[in-house]
Amino acid sequence: MTSGSIFVWETLGTAILILLGAGVVANVVLKDTLGNSGGWLLINFGWGFAVFAGASIAAPSGAHLNPAVTLGLAIADKTPWSQVPAYFAAQLLGAFLGAVLAWLAYKAQFDAHDDPAGTRGIFCTGPTVPRAGWNVVTEVIGTFVLVAWVLLSPGAKEAADGVPQLGNAALGYAGVAFVVVGIGNSLGGPTGYAINPARDLGPRIAYAVLPIRGKGAAEWGYAWVPVVGPLVGGALAALLYLTLPV
Amino acid sequence: MTSGSIFVWETLGTAILILLGAGVVANVVLKDTLGNSGGWLLINFGWGFAVFAGASIAAPSGAHLNPAVTLGLAIADKTPWSQVPAYFAAQLLGAFLGAVLAWLAYKAQFDAHDDPAGTRGIFCTGPTVPRAGWNVVTEVIGTFVLVAWVLLSPGAKEAADGVPQLGNAALGYAGVAFVVVGIGNSLGGPTGYAINPARDLGPRIAYAVLPIRGKGAAEWGYAWVPVVGPLVGGALAALLYLTLPV
Amino acid sequence: MTSGSIFVWETLGTAILILLGAGVVANVVLKDTLGNSGGWLLINFGWGFAVFAGASIAAPSGAHLNPAVTLGLAIADKTPWSQVPAYFAAQLLGAFLGAVLAWLAYKAQFDAHDDPAGTRGIFCTGPTVPRAGWNVVTEVIGTFVLVAWVLLSPGAKEAADGVPQLGNAALGYAGVAFVVVGIGNSLGGPTGYAINPARDLGPRIAYAVLPIRGKGAAEWGYAWVPVVGPLVGGALAALLYLTLPV
Amino acid sequence: MTSGSIFVWETLGTAILILLGAGVVANVVLKDTLGNSGGWLLINFGWGFAVFAGASIAAPSGAHLNPAVTLGLAIADKTPWSQVPAYFAAQLLGAFLGAVLAWLAYKAQFDAHDDPAGTRGIFCTGPTVPRAGWNVVTEVIGTFVLVAWVLLSPGAKEAADGVPQLGNAALGYAGVAFVVVGIGNSLGGPTGYAINPARDLGPRIAYAVLPIRGKGAAEWGYAWVPVVGPLVGGALAALLYLTLPV
Repeated sequence: MTSGSIFVWETLGTAILILLGAGVVANVVLKDTLGNSGGWLLINFGWGFAVFAGASIAAPSGAHLNPAVTLGLAIADKTPWSQVPAYFAAQLLGAFLGAVLAWLAYKAQFDAHDDPAGTRGIFCTGPTVPRAGWNVVTEVIGTFVLVAWVLLSPGAKEAADGVPQLGNAALGYAGVAFVVVGIGNSLGGPTGYAINPARDLGPRIAYAVLPIRGKGAAEWGYAWVPVVGPLVGGALAALLYLTLPV
Repeated sequence: MTSGSIFVWETLGTAILILLGAGVVANVVLKDTLGNSGGWLLINFGWGFAVFAGASIAAPSGAHLNPAVTLGLAIADKTPWSQVPAYFAAQLLGAFLGAVLAWLAYKAQFDAHDDPAGTRGIFCTGPTVPRAGWNVVTEVIGTFVLVAWVLLSPGAKEAADGVPQLGNAALGYAGVAFVVVGIGNSLGGPTGYAINPARDLGPRIAYAVLPIRGKGAAEWGYAWVPVVGPLVGGALAALLYLTLPV
Repeated sequence: MTSGSIFVWETLGTAILILLGAGVVANVVLKDTLGNSGGWLLINFGWGFAVFAGASIAAPSGAHLNPAVTLGLAIADKTPWSQVPAYFAAQLLGAFLGAVLAWLAYKAQFDAHDDPAGTRGIFCTGPTVPRAGWNVVTEVIGTFVLVAWVLLSPGAKEAADGVPQLGNAALGYAGVAFVVVGIGNSLGGPTGYAINPARDLGPRIAYAVLPIRGKGAAEWGYAWVPVVGPLVGGALAALLYLTLPV
Repeated sequence: MTSGSIFVWETLGTAILILLGAGVVANVVLKDTLGNSGGWLLINFGWGFAVFAGASIAAPSGAHLNPAVTLGLAIADKTPWSQVPAYFAAQLLGAFLGAVLAWLAYKAQFDAHDDPAGTRGIFCTGPTVPRAGWNVVTEVIGTFVLVAWVLLSPGAKEAADGVPQLGNAALGYAGVAFVVVGIGNSLGGPTGYAINPARDLGPRIAYAVLPIRGKGAAEWGYAWVPVVGPLVGGALAALLYLTLPV
C-alpha cells in the first residue's frame, strides 16, 4: 500500500476514533447533554465503540490509529519503517480533526457550559494523582496490554498483516474494541488511559487553538507523559513478541 | 428484489427497531416501570439491540431501516434509485407502527404516568439546547459516521449488497448495532441522535394521532431538524465514499 | 434426535438459564450481596448472558429453552409436534432445578435478608401496574419479537434447524442473547419480561415448595399471564413467518 | 505442546487476566481514580474483558488460565495429566505477577488511599456473609457453570482441543468472556466469584508480600474456600460431561 493511501485511511479512521472518543467525554462532562454524569462504564464503552467504528473504516491501512501500535508493529517487523512517518502524521492529523468535529457536534453545549475552564478533559488526558513517574508506568502498562494483544492474539496478527478476518466482516474489529474497553475499565483509573500518543496530542493541540468559550489551560507540562508512556509500552510489547516462541 | 418485498421487509424491520427503541425510552421515562431512571447507557444499549433485532430480521431487503442509509446507498450507486420510494415509504410506515406497538406495550404505564405532558421524548427527539443550526450540525455528524461505516467497513458493504456475512449468521448485524450504540454514547448528548428521518417522523406522527392520556405537544417546529440533518449527513458520507480509493 | 436426548439437553440448558437468570435478580435484590441495587441494565445483561450460556450448552437439542419458542417452531413446521412434549417437560423441570440452584448459591444471603417476604421477584415475574389484559399484551409483544427473530434472522433459522453456525463456534448464540437483553431493556419495564412460560412457572413452583426463610406468597393469581402471553406471542410470530415470502 | 511452552503462555495469559481483573477492582475501590464507585457491572465487564484479553493471548496453550478448568479438562480426558503441573504452576505464577503489575499501575492511588487496610478486596475474594459451607457451595456452582460451558458449548470444546475457531480470529474468546461476565453478574454476589484457585491465591500471596502502604490482613483463614470450591465445581462439570451423550 502506498504511503498516500495509508495517510488517507489512517486520517479518516483516527478522526472517527477521536470524534466518538472525545464525544463521549463531552456527553458526560458538559451540563446540557443527555449523557451528563453517565459514568465511567459509559465512557469506556464510548471509547470502545469509537475504536470499533474507526478501525473497521480504516481496515485498508491495517487500522493502527495509534503511533504506539505502529511503533510496535514496526519493531516486530510487521510494518515497514518507511511507512511509519505516513502513519504517524495521519494519526496526529486525524486526531486533531476528530477533536474539532467533536467540538462542533457539542458547540451549543460548550457555549452553555457552566465550567468552561474545566473542559480540557474532554480533549486530552490528565492524572488523578500528579506523580509523573507513576503516571508513565500506568500508561506503559496499559499500552503494553493493547499492543501485546494486537501482536499475539489470533486474528489480530492477521488483521495487522492485512489478512481479512472472519470472511469479510467488520466484526473482527470487535476484538480490539473489547480490549480497549477492558483497558479503560481496568487501567484507566489513574491517568484516563491515553495509551495512544496521537489520541492525546492531537486533541490537546485542538484545545489550544480552537476558540472554545472560556476554555482553560491545555496543561502542556503533562503532555509528554501520554506520548512517552505509550511509545515505551508499545515497544516493550514488541520486544516481548520477538522473544516468544510464536 | 421487488419493491413489494422491499416494502414488506423494511416495514417489519423498522417496526421492530422503533418498538424496541421507543420501548427503552418508555422504560426509563415512565414512572411505573422496572427500568425507571435507568440512565443513558441503558437507553443506548436499548437502541443498539433494537437495531440488531430489526436489521437481522430485515436482512432480505438489506436492512436499511433508515432513509439516510437508503439515500447514501443510492448516491453511492449501491441501491437503484427506482427502489428508493419503496424503502422510504416502508421505513416511515414501519416507524409509525413500531411506535404504536411500544405505546401498547406500555399502555398501563402511560395511563398511570404522573407527567403525561412530558411523554413526547419517548416517541421523537428534541434538543437540550434549542439552536437549530447547531442541532442540524450534530445530526449531520452523527449520521455521517453511521453511513460512512455502512459504506466503508468491511462486511457492511457486502451486507448492503446483499452478500451473506459470516456464513449465514445474524451476528454480522452486531457491527452496525455497536456503531449505533457508539453514536448514541458519543454524539447523542445534544439532540438525542435521531440520525434517521423515519425514526423521528414516524413516531412523532404516532404521538400526534394516538389517544395518549394527557399527552403534550408534538413539537412540529423541530421536526425538520431530524429529517434534514440525517439526509445531509448520509449524502455527505456517500460523497466521501465516492472520492475515496476503495 | 430422540426425545430422550432432547429432554437431557433442554433440562440442562434451561437449568443454566434460570440459575443465572434468577441469580442476577438475587444479586440485585438481596441485601448482603456485591451486586445489591445494581440496576436494570445489570439485570438485563445477566439474563442475556444466562441465555448465552444455557443456549450454547443446549446446542444439540436446538436450544429452545422456552415453550414459546418450541410452540413457534412447531407451528412453523421446524420442530415435529411429536417432540413438543419432551421439550415442554424438560423446560419446566430445568427451570425448577435452576431456581433451586440459584437459591442454594444465595442461601446465606436469603437467610440474612431483611425483607424475606419480598423475595418472590427473584423467582418469578410480576406487573408494576396490575392490569391483566395489558400485562398479557406486553408479554405477547415481547415474546413476538423473540420468536420472530428466531424464525426470521439469518443464522437463527439454521441454528433452530440444527445447522452449525459460524463454523463450530458457540458465539453464534450471542445473537439471541443480544435480542433478549434488548427485549429486557425495551419491553421488560411493565411486567419483568417472562417471555417464556417455563422461566416463570418453574421458579414459581420452586418458590412455593422450597423452605425459604420467611418467604411471601407465590402470587398464583398472576401465574397465568406469563404462560398465556408468551404462548400467544410465539404463535403469532410463527403465523407471521408462514405468511412472509421467506 | 511442550510443558515449557505451556508454562510460558499460561503465565503470560494469566498475568494479563489478573492485571486487568485486579485493575478494575482497584479502579472502583481506590479513592483517586476515574472509576471510583463505578459499580458491579463495571467490575464484571472488567473481569470479562480481562478474560478475553488474557485468553486470546494464551491461545497457543489452550488458554486455561484457571486450575479448575485444567482439572476439568484433565478429568474429561482433554488435557494429559502429565501437563497439569505446568498449567498449575504457570497459572499461580501468572496470577501473582498480574497482581504485582496491577499494584504498580495504581501505585500512586494506593499511596493516596484513605482506607489502606481495606485494599485486600482488590487482590482476592471474600464473602459478604461468612458461612464457609455455603460460600463453598456458591463457588462450586459458579465454577461448575464455567467448566460445563468450556466442555459442552460448541466451539469451546474445539478451542480447548487447540482447534482454531472462527477462522483465525480472537473473537472466539468472546464466548468465554460473556460467560464469565454472566457468572459475575449472576453468581458473584455472595463471594466475589473467585471461580479460579489461581485468581485468588496468587494475588493473595502478592498482597501478603508486597510493600503496600498501610495494608490490612490477607485473611488466610478464608483462602481455602476459593481453592476448594472451584476445584470441586470443575471436577463435577467434568463428571457431568463424561455422563452426557456427547
